[in-house]
Parts: sequence; structure tokens; C-alpha cells
Amino acid sequence: MDNILRIIMGPEGGPKATVIPVGEYAGIGGRALTSAIVSKEVPPLCHPLGADNKLVFAPGLLSGTAAAMSGRLSVGCKSPLTGGIKEANSGGQASQTLARLGYAAIVLEGAPKDDNIYKIFINKDGVEINLDNSLKMLGNYAVVEKMKAEYGDKIACISIGPAGEMKMCAASVACTDMELRPTRHAGRGGVGAVMGAKGVKVIVLDDSGMKMRSPKDPDKFREANKNWVDGLKKHPVTGEGLPAYGTNVLTNILNEAGAYPTKNFSLGQFAGSSKISGETEAATETTRGGSATHGCHRGCVIQCSGIYMDKNGQYLTKQPEYETVWAHGGNCGIDDLDAIAMLDRLDDDYGLDTIEMGATIGVAMEAGVAKFGDAQAAISLVHEVGKGTPLGRILGNGAAVTGKAFGVERVPVVKNQALPAYDPRGVQGIGVTYATSTMGADHTAGYAVTANILKVGGYVNPLTPEGQVELSRNLQIATAAVDATGMCLFIAFAVLDQPETFQALLDMLNAFYGLNLTGDDVTALGKSILKNERNFNTKAGFTPAHDRLPEFFKKELLPPHNVTFKVRDEDLDTVFNW
Amino acid sequence: MDNILRIIMGPEGGPKATVIPVGEYAGIGGRALTSAIVSKEVPPLCHPLGADNKLVFAPGLLSGTAAAMSGRLSVGCKSPLTGGIKEANSGGQASQTLARLGYAAIVLEGAPKDDNIYKIFINKDGVEINLDNSLKMLGNYAVVEKMKAEYGDKIACISIGPAGEMKMCAASVACTDMELRPTRHAGRGGVGAVMGAKGVKVIVLDDSGMKMRSPKDPDKFREANKNWVDGLKKHPVTGEGLPAYGTNVLTNILNEAGAYPTKNFSLGQFAGSSKISGETEAATETTRGGSATHGCHRGCVIQCSGIYMDKNGQYLTKQPEYETVWAHGGNCGIDDLDAIAMLDRLDDDYGLDTIEMGATIGVAMEAGVAKFGDAQAAISLVHEVGKGTPLGRILGNGAAVTGKAFGVERVPVVKNQALPAYDPRGVQGIGVTYATSTMGADHTAGYAVTANILKVGGYVNPLTPEGQVELSRNLQIATAAVDATGMCLFIAFAVLDQPETFQALLDMLNAFYGLNLTGDDVTALGKSILKNERNFNTKAGFTPAHDRLPEFFKKELLPPHNVTFKVRDEDLDTVFNW
Repeated sequence: MDNILRIIMGPEGGPKATVIPVGEYAGIGGRALTSAIVSKEVPPLCHPLGADNKLVFAPGLLSGTAAAMSGRLSVGCKSPLTGGIKEANSGGQASQTLARLGYAAIVLEGAPKDDNIYKIFINKDGVEINLDNSLKMLGNYAVVEKMKAEYGDKIACISIGPAGEMKMCAASVACTDMELRPTRHAGRGGVGAVMGAKGVKVIVLDDSGMKMRSPKDPDKFREANKNWVDGLKKHPVTGEGLPAYGTNVLTNILNEAGAYPTKNFSLGQFAGSSKISGETEAATETTRGGSATHGCHRGCVIQCSGIYMDKNGQYLTKQPEYETVWAHGGNCGIDDLDAIAMLDRLDDDYGLDTIEMGATIGVAMEAGVAKFGDAQAAISLVHEVGKGTPLGRILGNGAAVTGKAFGVERVPVVKNQALPAYDPRGVQGIGVTYATSTMGADHTAGYAVTANILKVGGYVNPLTPEGQVELSRNLQIATAAVDATGMCLFIAFAVLDQPETFQALLDMLNAFYGLNLTGDDVTALGKSILKNERNFNTKAGFTPAHDRLPEFFKKELLPPHNVTFKVRDEDLDTVFNW
Repeated sequence: MDNILRIIMGPEGGPKATVIPVGEYAGIGGRALTSAIVSKEVPPLCHPLGADNKLVFAPGLLSGTAAAMSGRLSVGCKSPLTGGIKEANSGGQASQTLARLGYAAIVLEGAPKDDNIYKIFINKDGVEINLDNSLKMLGNYAVVEKMKAEYGDKIACISIGPAGEMKMCAASVACTDMELRPTRHAGRGGVGAVMGAKGVKVIVLDDSGMKMRSPKDPDKFREANKNWVDGLKKHPVTGEGLPAYGTNVLTNILNEAGAYPTKNFSLGQFAGSSKISGETEAATETTRGGSATHGCHRGCVIQCSGIYMDKNGQYLTKQPEYETVWAHGGNCGIDDLDAIAMLDRLDDDYGLDTIEMGATIGVAMEAGVAKFGDAQAAISLVHEVGKGTPLGRILGNGAAVTGKAFGVERVPVVKNQALPAYDPRGVQGIGVTYATSTMGADHTAGYAVTANILKVGGYVNPLTPEGQVELSRNLQIATAAVDATGMCLFIAFAVLDQPETFQALLDMLNAFYGLNLTGDDVTALGKSILKNERNFNTKAGFTPAHDRLPEFFKKELLPPHNVTFKVRDEDLDTVFNW
């Protein structure tokens, strides 16, 4: 990973690729690298769909190595949804492949002068950029099929669907999984719209002939990796819960906690939860010949995913995540798992963030566009988005635009980004993260559900304001650092509870790079990433006034606990005082 | 004007009206009063369509007196379009009538608990609030006809059309003119949406039995008013240009100056300008039996308006203003004056800001929704808005939402509000006002076209950055003060050039209230209004980053002068350093 591949779209004579040594960006990866490049090179007030924005794809520091769980790819830019900096990351095969090809990052720059779209092929011999308008408005599944026919099946693809081409703020960037299906997404913040604005439909990566990245100290690295895997396997969440039921194990847990946002955040419990829970999902998958335990990339030992078959036993989609099941399920009053799986498939194919889409449909239902609980209407609405009808243009640009279009007051967004599947009144720690994260409302930015609900990494009462700021602060710092390593965030369960597993991660980094990092260095790395991001956002016009939840969370009581969000504004403003 | 009428929507048992002495708000009027109430009473982070926002209607200090030109009504709130404070003002009869009824302001507060809509009738005997769902989704013209049938023709109406009921960000508040037509609008910032959110369709004012407000020193007041009228009549703009051709006299002037935004701000001159100029408009009106010289309220001596008949000699609309003709004309490549007049009529009837709508259609045309120059398509698009179709929901929420929905990069807005009819590259002084005004892009907030183009109040080269900040600063201060008096802004032409006419205005205020105001007091008043507004906006999250034009004005050269906007960011940040 000694080079950065910069691809300039739009100069005379067509796009140009140049390979440049990492230079000043040496020694950082993933979110640390995307946020460093964006904060240094992108003018904070530029139009996110304009030539001055840059789209950065960066594997983590351990991607492309033998380290288990190191398959996350960070995608960064100025977000067309939030107007601030964005890093969304994705599983799948792309990160490992890109890292093995030797690139610390791909940066898409400039803007095309016309409506042509391009495919980019990268292998050991270099980079080819070809105009291919036959790909226009294809879904991600069809794009990948075409790439497979063209380049064989030893590839990984990074692509956008029609939503990205239409530059919608809910558009995701898809990465292919081990079966070469576009089921893994850098979902949030409209990163797909930025790829669309660059005129790039798909990046095809082929690492044939390249080797796994080799550590400075192979023996130490091998031993640390073994301890790492052992640690993950012995923790109940990463060793049992996630493999058995996937992330959707959370439906019953959050519903019981009364923090499961139901019908556009108007209730904290959903009557139909058992019909869409992880337990039901796993049983459905197994019965139909799918699988309830499956990984998204080679080197995954948690295997939190699965394969979801339709009623006829045909592949429909990967196992929908908890947040997807919530967004299209309880949040819309829908308790039909097959419909939710179909919505997941459609989102993946059109290239849409499932969280933003579910939240958006919830707002549209509140506006009366469809009825809560009407699964077929929800499916039709996602097709509207994929077709780019006027209604689809509204919905495809997310919950904030939809709220504006229909004059809705209860719009669950922070910095224009929809809140995920945990009501901040029932999980006050995650409310702090939603409000203050550099990314807009984002559960992955500081997953306080751990201590608030799961009693991982300690316990903080979820219904009172005490201790939430400190909890969120520490998690936001740690998460930023994890996002720099290429590690799947689910390692955090084991790392938070088991000091020796955290040490194993440090040992891997030290053995690989010949370093002597301590826990303090990891904290410093996390802080430096957040500082870069906050600097960008400040210049983009963000203030403490943007670090707030929508007012209805402070005014409307959430049943069954009948609580409001109680963390005070002045305390939210201390999250980044460290 | 000793009392404030507060109407609380939504308590148990229906809306409640209370009359409260002005108290702490004594001695201020118009924009000074609306901005004082909003900045003191409205939480800056509240949802603009929620119960915590307030909608304030305030006549100016001289409204309801015999002072010529004193008929402006200020409408203030937190804006659903910009998210900041808003004052939009309107001509017509409402301001004088409300003032004579003794109210310094009407404040609509709270929010209804259901979908019912109300009419409010105010006369010398008090206030009646009645539920009347028969008014639902009526256009402004039909609403006024119903009120006339119900309350007689000695009334003035303040109403919203379907756009306001649908809480669209481009929704205006309409005021009736002397012929009891809803042709005068507080257009900008979505004030109509806030009235819709309060569940109020129309406020009917009847000042029968009330007298004109009487000055402390009637003789001095009478003499000052005479000097005032003489001054207005002798200035070439207020005495000749505006009476003869109305504001649309500017089409030829701005087009010749190369500062006429054409086809969504891509050109500075419009080939079809002569077909839609003020000269052509006046001739068309006269030929068809309309009128090219007409006032919007009793006491107007400038008479800048007119009556526009259709091809059959039937009343179609009042004389469309320059900004309307530009917005629906040159900005959309449309050179058909009858179509533009029809668009003006539709905007008035649906209750829409003509500037926002024209700018929005320009963005939609750039996105390919319709072709530049297609007048019938533009008419269809406004009908979509009035009907509230999904496409109409996009367009009715303004240029920024439309740009987002269709992924357009060239979106001419500041603080989400569309730029009016003067390209900031060709009139750099107005660019400073657009960028820095507390209102979002607003030509009336500091009309630097005076010194830049019209050579009124001095001359500052419009194409270079020198002197523009000072020009805009002084005009923004003076305008805020004028907006407090109830005076039509067009008095500024005479006041800027003729010291004795400015003195006549001071003399009227002093004679009416028994004061000894000097020019310095007027400046201090303007500054205090801007300070209130800036304070609110800061708490609402606005920063210097929001005091910027969209980047394309700095990057794209505007033909024919091939200039960009050159005022530096650091100089924009000094506008409010006084």
C-alpha cells in the first residue's frame, strides 16, 4: 500500500489515472486516510456533486493481510446528504483486494464534462478506464454480472446503481461479497451520489498474481492473529450471538428494552417484532435452504451474515441486517419478513442506504403517502426511487428532503442524516452519538448500545443522562481508530470486554509494521481523526446548533418508558473536550 | 397600536385570542417588531412548522396614518426555507387597516391538534375565530370572494393558498389590494407555510368605525407629509420611471448592463428581453384597456403597479413586477409576456413566491424536467405545485430542494433562498447583500442596484469588488430601518438622493410620535434590527460559512462581461462590523 491511485475525471481527452507515492499520507489507512485527504484537499464549501469534491476509497491498515476481520473499505468525501465530511465503510472483498494490489487509496477527482459513464479495471498490470454507456441505469446485480462476463470471477467490484447515477443523497456504494454479489454497502451519506457525479459506474479489482501483504515480523504476527481469533471466538457476542442470528438478534433485545423505534419514532415497542426477529430470520433461512451463518469477506471469523432464500428456495438477498429489518420493518409498521428481504434486495440493487430508505418511508407514511404496515406500498415506493419518478426523487434524497416536501414535523435526522434503529430516548448514550458525531446520526460512530443495553464494556443506565457523554466520547474515539485499521466494528464487543484481545490487535499492528503502539497511541489516533473531521465540518458551517437531536425527542414521551431525551445541550457540547 | 393580539392555536377547546398591551415592544413597528418578537420568543432550533414557532404580522410605525407610502405589512417568523429568522413584507391594504384597528401586531402561536382550518375576523368590536373547512385548498382569489360575500367589501384580507396549506417552503402570505384582489404578497421564506402550520387560512380585517391614526403634532405632520410627497414626485425614479413602467422598467436596464440572469444564471443577457420589458408591458396593458399606473394601497403616490388584461380584455392579474417577469421570463428563457402574466396569476392564486418559483423552474429546466423557453411547460409545472403532486411537492419547496432532488449543481440560492433578478457577478454589490443578509438571498435587504447600476445615491462600479461591502452594509442598515416604518422601499430612491426628502420622513415620525429623531437614530434602529436578526441566526446555527454565494458564481464566467464574483470571503465577513 505504498501508492495512491488518483483518477482525474473530465480533463480534455478523457479521464487520466496517475499513481503517486503515499508521501505525506504514509502510515494511515481507512477512515484516517479518507478523512485526512478530504479535510486537506476538498474545499469545505464546495458543491458535493461538483468537480472540487473527491471520492476516496481506502483499505484499512491491516487490510490485505492475513489478519482476521480486516476487510472493511472506507469511502470518504464531502457528503451531499449532510454537507459535512463523510466516511462510510463496507465489508465485502474490495478492501482486501485493493490492499493487495498495493494501493493505499483510490481517489476520484474532477468531474466529467458530459453524461458518459465509465468503468475502471485495476489489476497487477495497471489501470484501464473505459467509457461504457451500456452500463447506464443498470442495477448493481446486473452490473456485476456484466463485469464477471468481461473480467472473469476472480474480481471484486465497487459499483453504484441507478440511485447513484441519479445523484440521490441516499445512494450507496456497493461492494461484492465472496459470492460476487453486490450485497455490502458503504451506505450512508450519499457516497454513491458522489461516485455518480464523477461518472464512474464500477471499479473492478483483480488481484490475481499479487500476494498477501507480508508483515515485518511474520512469527509475532501469526501468534497475535491466533490470539485475536481466539478472543473473538470466546466472547459470547462475537462467538455465539452474531454467528447464530446475525445482527438481527437485536430486534428482540431492543424491543424488550422499549427502545425500538416504531412507526417513525412514535413508539418504543413493535407488536410484530417476533415475526421479524433474528431468531425468526435464522429459522426461515435454514428451513428454506439458505444459511444463517456466513461471512462477507475471506478472513471473517464472526460470520454474522447469512443467505436469505425466497419462498421457492431461490436466492433473494444476503441476510438483512438488524438496522435494515428495523428500517423497513418496525419503523414502517411492517412485520412481513419476506417483504423486508425484498426491500433489502431492491435497496442493494438500486444502490440505496437501507437505513435512510426505511426512515424515509416512515416519514412518507407519517405524511400519508402510504399506510403504516403496508409492505407492498413500501416495495412500490422503493421502485419509484429506482425509476427516478418525481416521488422517487423525493424519497431517494432521504428523510430530511421527504419531510420538507410533505411538511412533516417528526423527521428523525441529525445533520440531515436519518437516525438508525435505536431510539435516543430509550438509549440515551446513542442519542449523544447521533447528535454529536461528525457524520450525522450514525450508530456506528459510537455504539453506546454496548454499555446501555448489552452490558458490554460496563453498564450505563440507558434512560438517564448521567454518564452518556463520557460513554459516547470514548466510543467515538475508539471507533474512529478501529475504522482506520480495516477491522470490522464487531470486534469491539470482544475488545471492550477482554483486555488481552485488545492487546492482540495492537500486537498485530506492531508486528506488521514494526511499531510499538500502545493503547494511548490508539486513543491519540482516534482523536486526531475526529479533529480532522471536526475541522472540516466547522469550515463547512457546522456549529453546536447542528449537534442537536430534532426537538421532538426532547418534547414527546416515548412509550413504554415515557421518557424524553434528557442529555443537556451544554453537556453535548463537551463531547469533544478531551 | 397600543396592543398586540395574540392568537393561540391548538389549546383544548379551540383557538383563543387575547389582547395584550405592547409593553416591552412599545415604540417599534414593522420589521423591528416582528424581528424583536421572533428573536425573543421563538427558540432558534425549533421546527419552523411546529408549535414553538410564531407568525407575527406587524404594520409599520407610520401605517394607518395619513403618511403617503406607509402601507407595508411585515410578516415575521422562523423561516422553513432558510431555517433562520424571516421578515417578508407586503403592500396592499392590510397594514393600514390593522394599524387603524389599534394593533401593533397579530401573533399566531401554538399549533392545531387536527387538520381543521380557521378564519379570523377582526373589527372594532373584537376578534372572532371560526372553523371553516369549506375554505380548504381554495386559491387566494376564491377565498377572498367568499370573505367578501360573508363580510362585505370594506375589508382587507391576509390569506394563504393551497401552497401554504401544504406547508411548502415557497408559500407566500397574500394581502388584498384596493380592488380586494389577493395580489400583494409577503413572498419570501415560506411565511405562508407557517400560516398553514398554524391552521389559519385567512385573517379578515374590517376597520369600519375606526379613524385614521392621529399625530401628536398634526400641523407639523401635515407639512412634513406634503414635503414628503413633493420629494417623491420630483425624483425621476419615483416621479416618472416607476409610475410609467413600474418595476419592470429594469428589464432593459439590467439586460443592457449584462447583469440579467438568463437561463438559470448561465448568461447575463436575454435575447427576448424587449418582448417582456416594462415598456412592452405598459403598452400591452394600455392597449388592452388595463392600466400601466396604479397603486397597491390607499396613500400610494408612486403608483408603480398596473392592471394586466388578457388578450380578450379581461382582468388577468396585477402588473407583474420586474422580479416576477425575470423569474418566469428570462431566467427560464421565456419571452411570452402573456404566459408570464398567467404564471403571476397562478402564483398569486396558489399562494407562491414568484421569485422562488421562477428560480425553481429554472433549476428544473437545467435538470431537463422541461425545456428552457417552454412557457406552457412552466405553466403546467406551477399547476403541479398547486395540486400537490409529487413533482409539485419538489418544486413548491423551492430551488434548493429541487436542486437536491434532481442532482443539479448550479443552484442559485443563499441560505436555501433563491437569488432574485440581478446576477451578483454583474452587480457585485447586490452579491454582497445576497451573501450576507440575515434573510437569505434577498434584493430588498440592501438594494445595491441603486449605486451599482442606477447611479442613485452615488456610483460604485458594479463589476469590481471595491466599495461593495460598504455599499451593501449601509443599505442593509437603512433598509432595516425603512422596513420598520411601514414605508414602501421605493421611497429609498428619493431619500438617497435628496436630503430634504429624508428629512421629511424624519419630520413625519417626529411630528407623529412627539420625538426628536435624527439620521443617527435611524441608523441605530437599523443596526439594532440587524443585530437581533443576526443573534437569532447565530443560535440557529448560521456561521460565516453561510454568508457565501454558491461556488459557481466564483468559478463560472458570466457573459458578456465574463466576470466572476470577486468580493473576498474575508471582506464579506466585515459587513456587520460597524
